[in-house]
Amino acid sequence: MAVLFLSTPARAEVFRQAFARALPDIAFHFGEAPDPQDIRWIVTWTAPEDLATRYPNLRLVFSIGAGVDQFDMSRIPAHVSIVRMLDPGIAAQMGEYATMATLAMHRDLPLYLAQQRKGEWRAGDNLPAAQRRVGVMGLGQLGSLVIERLKPFGFDLAGYSRSPRRIEGVECFTDLSAFLARSDILLCLLPLTGETQGILNADLFAQLPQGARLVHLGRGKQLVAQDLLDALESGRLASAMLDVTDPEPLPADDPLWHHPRVIVTPHIASQTSAIEGAAHVVAGVRADLSGQDIPGLIDRTRGY
Amino acid sequence: MAVLFLSTPARAEVFRQAFARALPDIAFHFGEAPDPQDIRWIVTWTAPEDLATRYPNLRLVFSIGAGVDQFDMSRIPAHVSIVRMLDPGIAAQMGEYATMATLAMHRDLPLYLAQQRKGEWRAGDNLPAAQRRVGVMGLGQLGSLVIERLKPFGFDLAGYSRSPRRIEGVECFTDLSAFLARSDILLCLLPLTGETQGILNADLFAQLPQGARLVHLGRGKQLVAQDLLDALESGRLASAMLDVTDPEPLPADDPLWHHPRVIVTPHIASQTSAIEGAAHVVAGVRADLSGQDIPGLIDRTRGY
Repeated sequence: MAVLFLSTPARAEVFRQAFARALPDIAFHFGEAPDPQDIRWIVTWTAPEDLATRYPNLRLVFSIGAGVDQFDMSRIPAHVSIVRMLDPGIAAQMGEYATMATLAMHRDLPLYLAQQRKGEWRAGDNLPAAQRRVGVMGLGQLGSLVIERLKPFGFDLAGYSRSPRRIEGVECFTDLSAFLARSDILLCLLPLTGETQGILNADLFAQLPQGARLVHLGRGKQLVAQDLLDALESGRLASAMLDVTDPEPLPADDPLWHHPRVIVTPHIASQTSAIEGAAHVVAGVRADLSGQDIPGLIDRTRGY
Repeated sequence: MAVLFLSTPARAEVFRQAFARALPDIAFHFGEAPDPQDIRWIVTWTAPEDLATRYPNLRLVFSIGAGVDQFDMSRIPAHVSIVRMLDPGIAAQMGEYATMATLAMHRDLPLYLAQQRKGEWRAGDNLPAAQRRVGVMGLGQLGSLVIERLKPFGFDLAGYSRSPRRIEGVECFTDLSAFLARSDILLCLLPLTGETQGILNADLFAQLPQGARLVHLGRGKQLVAQDLLDALESGRLASAMLDVTDPEPLPADDPLWHHPRVIVTPHIASQTSAIEGAAHVVAGVRADLSGQDIPGLIDRTRGY
């Protein structure tokens, strides 16, 4: 029984040590397996093309990052389960970034940065947080923590998810249109699925209040970039802060980089720590060996 | 008995209505007083040159903004007391801005903004908040609220004040050097006094850890701008976010505007709301009339 690790050498070393300490009887292979029949578990970011045929005894594929949307599911046989990365550090980092971005949109940072480039000193008026309606799309582990981080500021908070949720002090919607109509600052934390691909488009922007602001922390393919540029042009959207783009890296001449009311960061909102990631995978392998529930197991019909 | 109001006409209207409702027997004058002998209270940003001679029955001067350092104290007779603005909105706004700025320094926003200008997609590593030592200078009403807002993120927090303070979960220093030596992100929320003028200088920056970051929310005259530029040049400081400058407005060609690792905003961290400000002044006049403690009364020997 062996683990195959397909990511960077630096991360491989951290995982190797974690397995050697916690599960010394499990062989750990980096890059390739001497005997593919031994491989029960693969830790990777994407599914190798020959995964279905090469590893007949494969049981679990662990994603090395927070999402699983990067997997070509057709390459992963139905009897193989998929596990997403769980790492408390991911949520904490997302809470930091989302709070920074929400406050930056609330306090007109893109406007002040544009003025700074011109050496222009001009103060606008601050809107009290209670008069700013913030809407969080996606109420899983990340969205829930983001809402907790935003609560102390006194924003008028709401959340949206496909299935009903209850969060204290927050109005939770399953009706997307009603949610959008009251979101002055919209945060997208949705997973990428067939349903959410392209969801941030002209039709959605048209349902936001005039002058709304967007914080995009989901996946690049959820955003129709031209529709965002058009919404900024028309004034429907006042500004945006994007941590994900399509493609990544964003080409140097992409208009999103150079729009005066858009801030783009290179997918740094949340990064997996190798140490915490290794602990999560070790726990998953242990649970699999003892027949217990595996933390982070994906529902393959929903895609998250 | 009358109030003299010396600020903008829009604010005067809000104050006039507040006095008419709450203290209808007190006359309210905007700009000038028909009979200066009637004036017991003045609401203003700066002290008029003839204050000492023109208003023989003056008892209190209310500052229309958060500070009192703008007053030329030599123009205000010793028997006249000075009251600073207290407005819960001021602290709330400061909490928003300070959190945004601290997270922006923590998450390397100036670096990513500089990369964005070049269309450069390059992710750095995120440092866990627990490994980032944040130091707040000034532990009054504003500094204390800022610390409360920063707590949920898990920063390694410390505070500095001249007189000993206790804040749960935060190491409080009265020894400035010891405090500086452990502050990776330094926030200045000090009032401007003779002692704090020019306090953010080369000597202070040299006591910070290499690569520290500065958030300046006090007063422009506390910062020696050339020393900041030198510290950025030498690498002692990695970046800075300034909401106050000297002078204000900052001239368009000032190097602070154009430094790639400095963010400048035009003194917008905290703005007084006219409605809340009027309520504060009405409460102060009421307290004066009934001989009770006046909220926001300044200790003129300390200057805050």
